[in-house]
Amino acid sequence: MIHLFTTGGTIDKIYHDANSEFTVGDSLLPELLEEANVTVPWRVTGLLRKDSLELTSDDRQQVREAVAACPEERIIITHGTDTMAATAAVLDGTPGKTIVLFGAMQPARMRRSDAAFNLGFAVAAVRLLPAGVYVAMNGEVFEAGKVRKNLKAGRFERD
Amino acid sequence: MIHLFTTGGTIDKIYHDANSEFTVGDSLLPELLEEANVTVPWRVTGLLRKDSLELTSDDRQQVREAVAACPEERIIITHGTDTMAATAAVLDGTPGKTIVLFGAMQPARMRRSDAAFNLGFAVAAVRLLPAGVYVAMNGEVFEAGKVRKNLKAGRFERD
Amino acid sequence: MIHLFTTGGTIDKIYHDANSEFTVGDSLLPELLEEANVTVPWRVTGLLRKDSLELTSDDRQQVREAVAACPEERIIITHGTDTMAATAAVLDGTPGKTIVLFGAMQPARMRRSDAAFNLGFAVAAVRLLPAGVYVAMNGEVFEAGKVRKNLKAGRFERD
Amino acid sequence: MIHLFTTGGTIDKIYHDANSEFTVGDSLLPELLEEANVTVPWRVTGLLRKDSLELTSDDRQQVREAVAACPEERIIITHGTDTMAATAAVLDGTPGKTIVLFGAMQPARMRRSDAAFNLGFAVAAVRLLPAGVYVAMNGEVFEAGKVRKNLKAGRFERD
Repeated sequence: MIHLFTTGGTIDKIYHDANSEFTVGDSLLPELLEEANVTVPWRVTGLLRKDSLELTSDDRQQVREAVAACPEERIIITHGTDTMAATAAVLDGTPGKTIVLFGAMQPARMRRSDAAFNLGFAVAAVRLLPAGVYVAMNGEVFEAGKVRKNLKAGRFERD
Repeated sequence: MIHLFTTGGTIDKIYHDANSEFTVGDSLLPELLEEANVTVPWRVTGLLRKDSLELTSDDRQQVREAVAACPEERIIITHGTDTMAATAAVLDGTPGKTIVLFGAMQPARMRRSDAAFNLGFAVAAVRLLPAGVYVAMNGEVFEAGKVRKNLKAGRFERD
Repeated sequence: MIHLFTTGGTIDKIYHDANSEFTVGDSLLPELLEEANVTVPWRVTGLLRKDSLELTSDDRQQVREAVAACPEERIIITHGTDTMAATAAVLDGTPGKTIVLFGAMQPARMRRSDAAFNLGFAVAAVRLLPAGVYVAMNGEVFEAGKVRKNLKAGRFERD
Repeated sequence: MIHLFTTGGTIDKIYHDANSEFTVGDSLLPELLEEANVTVPWRVTGLLRKDSLELTSDDRQQVREAVAACPEERIIITHGTDTMAATAAVLDGTPGKTIVLFGAMQPARMRRSDAAFNLGFAVAAVRLLPAGVYVAMNGEVFEAGKVRKNLKAGRFERD
């Protein structure tokens, strides 16, 4: 069983005409997993709905506790890209679990988005990697504590 | 460097109005890899453009030789789902390479398709698995020789 | 009230992996009309699910009778493109109604399709045109009896 | 010949990961017109790239002058929805031209958007309506000066 937690970020953004802005909406994860005919058992838990720049220490602690408390050993977390590396560092050291964080640079609801590819990549990574905390973006796996987002280039790099 | 070979199949099908049928068209792999902002080096080689039910022993031998001859150790092959397991069995035993076959149940050009998810899954699998030949479908990894397509259920299973 | 009848054709085609072919599926018209936030009242009736090359004289008579029998004066018919002109000719002479036939060269379920544009065009046409029978394709309005499909060029022309 | 002018608004919005916001990007109009296989001659001119709440009297005057100066009689203008009715009122009285304004509640780059439908509707409207200025939204045609956006309901209404 894979347990997916959502925390918000670009991947789940919805456009609101009324105020001409994007906010975090319902997660598309279940729809994407069904489109992909994934036969491995999975469940999705919505934890937070925030831009990752707005996440507090308390939020990160909440994520750490939720991950530690659930019975599953294979954990995927969707997360805004700006502070994904910081949350990975907080989760680091969680014993006995393989934890993969990922997000998207374009909302899953766009015609062109990295969301479905990144989700597929994360599902493979969470099944094949040993216990530990990882960031999975740009077709790469990064270990927690050794990754940063290059904001200007719009991609993740080893730190 | 990841080397991707295309052989046809549902994933690259295009609709032709003139004769009301789908045929294999240009591969969407480069577009999907760019949408996903993949930073790992990759290149795509078009080998065949066939429904996998039409593949001959000679075709499979051609795939085996192309994979063996290229310098890359990380190989992804897109393939029609009906005989993907048969081609995986022919490739089995290729020394020193990690080879991942995948395809799609819906063409990549459809609004709803498993193509982008499956590609992301295959890229993670080819980077994380040891040398060997694998089928990566339905969010699962199957070893060559131990997998079959359940045509009725529309999914892959251990054999 | 606009009454939309579906008869099949490319616009509603679905891909079936099991036999690697497209068949006519549930119509996407209701979904497309909702996406477009259409506030004019509308209803959809499914009449036939055929490639238009398979339509018989009886089928065309059935369409003519359904259109004549319904109380609405504004009628849209989705139809395969190959014999759309023939069905328009059969409907010609229906008194007191504005009837617009349209279809698509690419299924509505494809990422890139002319379906939504053509539907929008047909809705405007059926509201603005006087009583009569019209084919609305390629951003043009053609009168019944004066239109043919140029199969080679993949577009409709005045005949 | 149909002449399309773009002024910005939701229809052409692009998501920027760097600052987590949408701005007006290159117009998708040419791509949408090509997807629809429109055979009527058309050309697109980019005039402004603004949210319609930011449009000034000078901007509206610029639109009026551009429309009056061009040789074409069939004019379509893409526009943000919030002040579309105000711009329509400024254009009213332009002699000898059929002018249709439209926009979208969801960016054209979203998987689900009203952009392609609304464009198709506008193309039919501009070809079939007599000289005058019109707003074409929600599958309806409104005359300039007699239309307002109902912000709360997210649709246009007669005023």
